[in-house]
Amino acid sequence: MKRDLDALMEARGLDAVVVSGRTHGNPSLVYLLNGAPVSQGIVVKKRGETPVFIHSPIEWDEAKASGLPLVNMARYRFTDILRETGDRLAATVELYRRIFADLGVRGEVGFYGMADQGQSYLFLTALSQAMPEIRVRGEYDENLLEVARATKDADEVARIREVACLTCEVVEETLTFLRRHRVRDETLITGDGSPLTVGQVHRQIYRLLAERGLEASEGLIFAIGADAGVPHNHGRPDDPIRLGQTVVYDIYPRGPSGYFFDLTRTFCLGYAPPEVEKVYRDVAECLEAVIAEVQVGVEARRLQQVACAFFAERGYPTIAGDPETAVGFTHGIGHGLGLAIHEEPVFTDVPSNTRTLQPGHVFTVEPGLYDPGRGYGVRLEDVLWIDESGQVHNLTTLPKTLVVEV
Amino acid sequence: MKRDLDALMEARGLDAVVVSGRTHGNPSLVYLLNGAPVSQGIVVKKRGETPVFIHSPIEWDEAKASGLPLVNMARYRFTDILRETGDRLAATVELYRRIFADLGVRGEVGFYGMADQGQSYLFLTALSQAMPEIRVRGEYDENLLEVARATKDADEVARIREVACLTCEVVEETLTFLRRHRVRDETLITGDGSPLTVGQVHRQIYRLLAERGLEASEGLIFAIGADAGVPHNHGRPDDPIRLGQTVVYDIYPRGPSGYFFDLTRTFCLGYAPPEVEKVYRDVAECLEAVIAEVQVGVEARRLQQVACAFFAERGYPTIAGDPETAVGFTHGIGHGLGLAIHEEPVFTDVPSNTRTLQPGHVFTVEPGLYDPGRGYGVRLEDVLWIDESGQVHNLTTLPKTLVVEV
Repeated sequence: MKRDLDALMEARGLDAVVVSGRTHGNPSLVYLLNGAPVSQGIVVKKRGETPVFIHSPIEWDEAKASGLPLVNMARYRFTDILRETGDRLAATVELYRRIFADLGVRGEVGFYGMADQGQSYLFLTALSQAMPEIRVRGEYDENLLEVARATKDADEVARIREVACLTCEVVEETLTFLRRHRVRDETLITGDGSPLTVGQVHRQIYRLLAERGLEASEGLIFAIGADAGVPHNHGRPDDPIRLGQTVVYDIYPRGPSGYFFDLTRTFCLGYAPPEVEKVYRDVAECLEAVIAEVQVGVEARRLQQVACAFFAERGYPTIAGDPETAVGFTHGIGHGLGLAIHEEPVFTDVPSNTRTLQPGHVFTVEPGLYDPGRGYGVRLEDVLWIDESGQVHNLTTLPKTLVVEV
Repeated sequence: MKRDLDALMEARGLDAVVVSGRTHGNPSLVYLLNGAPVSQGIVVKKRGETPVFIHSPIEWDEAKASGLPLVNMARYRFTDILRETGDRLAATVELYRRIFADLGVRGEVGFYGMADQGQSYLFLTALSQAMPEIRVRGEYDENLLEVARATKDADEVARIREVACLTCEVVEETLTFLRRHRVRDETLITGDGSPLTVGQVHRQIYRLLAERGLEASEGLIFAIGADAGVPHNHGRPDDPIRLGQTVVYDIYPRGPSGYFFDLTRTFCLGYAPPEVEKVYRDVAECLEAVIAEVQVGVEARRLQQVACAFFAERGYPTIAGDPETAVGFTHGIGHGLGLAIHEEPVFTDVPSNTRTLQPGHVFTVEPGLYDPGRGYGVRLEDVLWIDESGQVHNLTTLPKTLVVEV
């Protein structure tokens, strides 16, 4: 949580942290800016002090929403510095030298936020050489902002719940939309007698999201049949919606608050083949088995182990047995969820993953079984939250039903 | 253009480039992947050779859309490497060592793509130490992918035109929506007699975008009155829509192809105050004056100079005179547009900006005048394209009209 930042900095021996870049696709920056609707910025936080936000001159008004002490970047007259140095890299180093002098930043300084890789390498190498009074630090894995973000406070959980509620509505309304169609030759047909296509359903889902202020900023999955058998296949626009085929519907929209939700349901319209019925039951039971393991202190990787063991025992291939398998359980059991769709905690089953489940964690559990050759895929995904007392809550209220009558 | 990549690599003395990361918010990766609908990847291109795409195991199907030779990341058994090294940084270095060995990558290697800054610094420093047979290279400014992306080929321009056409439709439909409302006390009112608000208009715009497959992935601006006087103010949801006030409507959606468009119009409903009429005329004439300067070989910074000189001569403050001004012309004259909203060319007026306008460039021209204290802002924005023969095309077909009758 945000209140842990000073302790996390102390544990890492950091005197200050800098988080910068554009806000788009940069959740740690959005986090420190408390979701202020700005396009970019530099946030500097010294240990034990409130972060300072150095904002774009044309965003002085929006910057206020951060609630942070503000410094207008115009004060540094960057174009003048650029004129003096004649080089953008040298100018940026000089800009930071001035900012650090003004804010009294010294010692061990951690750098975070999304930027071009080669550019960051050049900049931090040059800064390190130009400013002997600071030591440039980075973190490769589980960085302090990711760790702080991983445990959500009550306000953040309330925002995630809002998106959860609207996301469930969108899924229900999508089913209502499908049910409104007539059936001919085992295929849904539209008013003009042509088959309803996956592309038309995608369009309808985007409309349902927009009406609720949700954005599918990283896409969505509504895939049928063999396509549903490939975990990240988004669905082919021209595919007709046929009865008796598995539809994997995986939706991960972002709400106006910046927080994401993530939900997957699998269903068949009209009826389900017996093979799919069995697979669906196995996935649903696996989901329950994994959820039953969730409690504070349990190793995160244990959830991946439980899922793999569960499916292996029922005779399915898993990535634990064959990392290249495209049949059976072929992916991770879940991921943290917040200002990014994929964030801490990470559930990878490797010895170096020593993460344990903690109060405040919000994460998905999403077992799935796939067989593209046999034309199906089944995935079910709920979102869990461990509250401050350690109680586990399922934030996904939508029921799970394989067969949707039409 | 993509076909220039080998020449750009040669000019920089690069033997190979690596572009990696998640695709979200990572336009150079999306560019090399030809828009394939994957979530992440590593692309390695040796000079004179086709790029190779090392893709996620669960995206083997979507990866095909890149049209590139594919390598399944599962082949490298990363979790086994992680087990051996016990550390994610060391494991990633080892992964790259194996990839480079397989692909015969040696010499000068440039690294690109969005990632956490401190993480990139650690990774590239460690890789540099672990692999003496390569030299790690980055670029701070105008990197080769940005330069390649800046000049669009015919196919890219066709995609931008598609988004342009749909974006113009959305703006026209928004005006139709506004006109459908009755007026009471100089305020638009809804069917139930309550004032129409900026928030309701935002919602309607998102619906219009969704119906056309467009995403406002970085937001949109529909701001009225004093809010319109602050360039990046998105509009306050509770503000009522009143007659005679400037509305700045700036919309920058992304189409399904991944390409953006960017369009700004300013209007007043019912009537415009004389002061606003004059300011609007000055902005419209500035836009024409800047467009008249556009031709191949002209320095990009010249457009910024022309706009500042134009406004200064008519008595307005500009950032050329006062970098901190919040009144007058307070921002840049434009920016390149493509797979990112802001990309090359850059128009900043500094001596180090030696960019010149080139065939294939697609960029905005967006003069504006603001006075939040007097409650208005006016901005007009068109998108220009310089074709291969050097002819300049205005891709924004929407007319400019200050007063919208209601």
